[in-house]
Amino acid sequence: MVGRKRKNSRKKPTLGNHQRSWIWGQHAVLEMLRAGRWQPLSVVICEELLDAALFAEAMSLLKLNSIEYRLADDAAEIENLIHARDHQGMAANMTEFPTVALDELMEGLPENPFLLLLDRVQDPFNFGSILRSADLFGVNGIIIGESEQVGVTSHVARSSVGAVNYLNIATVASLPETVQTLLEKSYQIVAATEKGTSSPSQIDLQKPVAIVIGNEGKGIQHELLALCNQRCAIPQVGHIDSLNAAVAAGILCYEVHRQRTTI
Amino acid sequence: MVGRKRKNSRKKPTLGNHQRSWIWGQHAVLEMLRAGRWQPLSVVICEELLDAALFAEAMSLLKLNSIEYRLADDAAEIENLIHARDHQGMAANMTEFPTVALDELMEGLPENPFLLLLDRVQDPFNFGSILRSADLFGVNGIIIGESEQVGVTSHVARSSVGAVNYLNIATVASLPETVQTLLEKSYQIVAATEKGTSSPSQIDLQKPVAIVIGNEGKGIQHELLALCNQRCAIPQVGHIDSLNAAVAAGILCYEVHRQRTTI
Repeated sequence: MVGRKRKNSRKKPTLGNHQRSWIWGQHAVLEMLRAGRWQPLSVVICEELLDAALFAEAMSLLKLNSIEYRLADDAAEIENLIHARDHQGMAANMTEFPTVALDELMEGLPENPFLLLLDRVQDPFNFGSILRSADLFGVNGIIIGESEQVGVTSHVARSSVGAVNYLNIATVASLPETVQTLLEKSYQIVAATEKGTSSPSQIDLQKPVAIVIGNEGKGIQHELLALCNQRCAIPQVGHIDSLNAAVAAGILCYEVHRQRTTI
Repeated sequence: MVGRKRKNSRKKPTLGNHQRSWIWGQHAVLEMLRAGRWQPLSVVICEELLDAALFAEAMSLLKLNSIEYRLADDAAEIENLIHARDHQGMAANMTEFPTVALDELMEGLPENPFLLLLDRVQDPFNFGSILRSADLFGVNGIIIGESEQVGVTSHVARSSVGAVNYLNIATVASLPETVQTLLEKSYQIVAATEKGTSSPSQIDLQKPVAIVIGNEGKGIQHELLALCNQRCAIPQVGHIDSLNAAVAAGILCYEVHRQRTTI
């Protein structure tokens, strides 16, 4: 897993909202330092709020990776800096998340790849939850579009409970173009859509597969949907006609994993 | 589905936060009026922001159910009232959500019931998403504990995209006592827990079943977990050791539905 930062001049800077540049909480910051992939610019740490072993581990990782740090006297000092209370004595000032280039992501795939494509997912909580499920079920790469898609912000990183540290995420200019490339490599492109005619368990998900999840309100864009060679609807019996995007993604990831392990 | 309001003096009033007493948005308010179960105290409606057919339907439902209403002159009038902009011309001032008594919920169950028990789910977004999945997959009743559990607030109702209008939700003083009762009726009580030894597809979910989902951080309380006769872990292959509670609930509801329809 290479943490090369991808240049992308069209992307909005992620520092507009002050909190977006900070990640805080013992678990979130330590997990990032342990993974060693998304390096903070600097870390603020308060010894008296951490247990001794965790403090020692954090200090050793900071020194090992030559990350600038500052020792805070108390909780209030960190709170004033990040405008949040639940920092548990640790906060990291972040650079932009290190996405990978699509080529790089594709080169590192195993024999029977499992990819997830997100088309304009806008809620940071949903995006974070999707990354959490993706890591848990062994997704090999995440591909997101450049426009109308929430980036890997601090909020997303926190909702992912650390999964961002272990996933390869590529941003592409055109998802339809990417899908064309995947089709040439004989992928099954499975659109999650209420208009689908197959249920997840009717689709053979043991081949190379890319699951496509659309925008929370509008679903998958027309041009992209037209390219998907499988349209999959999650069965429904009640009054509500669609699932939350993160729940739908979780169910499809579960189904891929179920088919690949139990059959 | 009977909308009898359950008295519960121990419950905190839901009006502490001003916005908690309002539900807004055309879809959310209309769905509530159509279902006719959770009756608003009053509705504010702005004719010029609704299309003619929707306005006519809303007015006819308000009059049919003798619900007090007020015509607003413009969007700002509603915005000033509810302190939110995305009302789309409709806002409803709500009473407490009409939960049902446990006995009532149990009496109305079909032959092979599918229940969902929530043990201290605290995030309104998670609770709403769980209700959305529950309706979609045909859950017959939701049972929640009285303490440390988020109630059916406006935020929950909105996250459920209307599912609250179609689900029977019972609040009980003791979830372990309720589980004892279900065990006497030969239910499978399936705890969703990382400590589980069976995967969802290994458990026979075609019998009467109650799925138990625990608190986002702490999981299922010890006393309740000890009573569950099935402990189910969702398989995982990555670095992250647990799913978001709403995603886990969605996957288990999907699996119950899958087993009951495809086998």
